[in-house]
Amino acid sequence: MNAPKRRILGIDPGSRMTGFGVVDVVGQQRLYVASGCIRTPDGAALAERIRVIVTGLFEVVDTYRPDETAVEQVFVNVNPAATLMLGQARGAVVSALVMKDLPVAEYTALQVKQSVVGHGKAPKEQVQAMIVRLLSLSGTPQADAADALAVALTHANHSHAALAAFTRQGLRIKGGRLA
Amino acid sequence: MNAPKRRILGIDPGSRMTGFGVVDVVGQQRLYVASGCIRTPDGAALAERIRVIVTGLFEVVDTYRPDETAVEQVFVNVNPAATLMLGQARGAVVSALVMKDLPVAEYTALQVKQSVVGHGKAPKEQVQAMIVRLLSLSGTPQADAADALAVALTHANHSHAALAAFTRQGLRIKGGRLA
Repeated sequence: MNAPKRRILGIDPGSRMTGFGVVDVVGQQRLYVASGCIRTPDGAALAERIRVIVTGLFEVVDTYRPDETAVEQVFVNVNPAATLMLGQARGAVVSALVMKDLPVAEYTALQVKQSVVGHGKAPKEQVQAMIVRLLSLSGTPQADAADALAVALTHANHSHAALAAFTRQGLRIKGGRLA
Repeated sequence: MNAPKRRILGIDPGSRMTGFGVVDVVGQQRLYVASGCIRTPDGAALAERIRVIVTGLFEVVDTYRPDETAVEQVFVNVNPAATLMLGQARGAVVSALVMKDLPVAEYTALQVKQSVVGHGKAPKEQVQAMIVRLLSLSGTPQADAADALAVALTHANHSHAALAAFTRQGLRIKGGRLA
């Protein structure tokens, strides 16, 4: 039986920059599809920044048509104003995905590092280097895009395990998703 | 010349409860149209809570068809996790309004109290009592709905002043909005 292809969109939300990364999962293979950043205009009002994030993500979803999505759980910052802004960006990201009827999984930075590098204390650079290796990239993507690809790969590993477990239990799988 | 009617939707975002209030502005008159709360399910995943907020607001917008919207600027909480959750709810609210192509104004709690009661130190109960009086309500609305009505009234006062100033300067007014 051929393994079905699942396309995962990973997102690293930020108030100034939201990274996205698209990865195809075919059996044990992880194939790079696309990645990039949605930059929000400095000094713009909240509504305008949110409009940029939502329409940007709509474009990404319409272009790459992912089956599943995964969003990085933002680490709670020491600065309350920054935490609020990060929360707002994250709310906008999840709103856009939900309105496109996509399932949204969440992973903490710790889970991402453990899944991609093997331990939770890995520095950012090691995560990036691992992304380049795991996806056979010819260059290092921008930091936010690399983080988004790492979230997508984390979801690929987690949901693969979940999928295998469900399959063993004899549950149905519909179009690559758990049904 | 008859004053044009403007319908304002005010929103008080919260991670558990999002209040909304709809007010019509006709010249100096402020007329109550509707108010209520969107309650998000306790313990549900972020995506589900955001889905409830966004679809709930879509329903409010489709039902009452406001011309303008105003959102309360959340006070930054001492608890970072709560601040993040509040930010996410706020991001979802603004995303929903932006996707309905509505202009979104923002007011701080201080501005709302100053506008509705006349000074920034008014307790919550005084704001609620003032809402009941200003809108000639027969009963006190729920706290979150009252806050949302207060935000709508604040926007009515602020944008009315702006409208008057613009009109004096001879600028065009289109459908009750500044053009």
